[in-house]
Amino acid sequence: MNKSIFYHAGCPVCVSAEHDLLNLIDPESVEIIHLGENKEKLGDAQAAGLKSVPALVTPSGNVLHINFGAALSDLQG
Amino acid sequence: MNKSIFYHAGCPVCVSAEHDLLNLIDPESVEIIHLGENKEKLGDAQAAGLKSVPALVTPSGNVLHINFGAALSDLQG
Repeated sequence: MNKSIFYHAGCPVCVSAEHDLLNLIDPESVEIIHLGENKEKLGDAQAAGLKSVPALVTPSGNVLHINFGAALSDLQG
Repeated sequence: MNKSIFYHAGCPVCVSAEHDLLNLIDPESVEIIHLGENKEKLGDAQAAGLKSVPALVTPSGNVLHINFGAALSDLQG
């Protein structure tokens, strides 16, 4: 099975969601990407359909936007 | 460990999120409540902090609103 990818930006909403999700999902099955520290991944995230963080991209390619921390556009530039 | 509760209302966004989440989380650890068919649960959902569906209430009591299907107020009355 492909891994899920959890995108976040270090905001309190992101950290809270990350903590909760990783209690529910096998941590081995999730790759975690901090878009604030890895801006070169913004293109991948947008291509996957990400609009905001935190969000989980599932192995089937669906994007689950979880609560709302920051818009992707706020992380650019 | 307490169960998580996944609240939904049968909308396409809800069903898609449910399908994806249940592939990632042990189905035994999640209770699923259809608020459209169980309106008597709306009070519990609001008390938990739910604003919209689909949403997952984690064992620690945090509410993860996932994407956006419907506002809770649309399910009332």
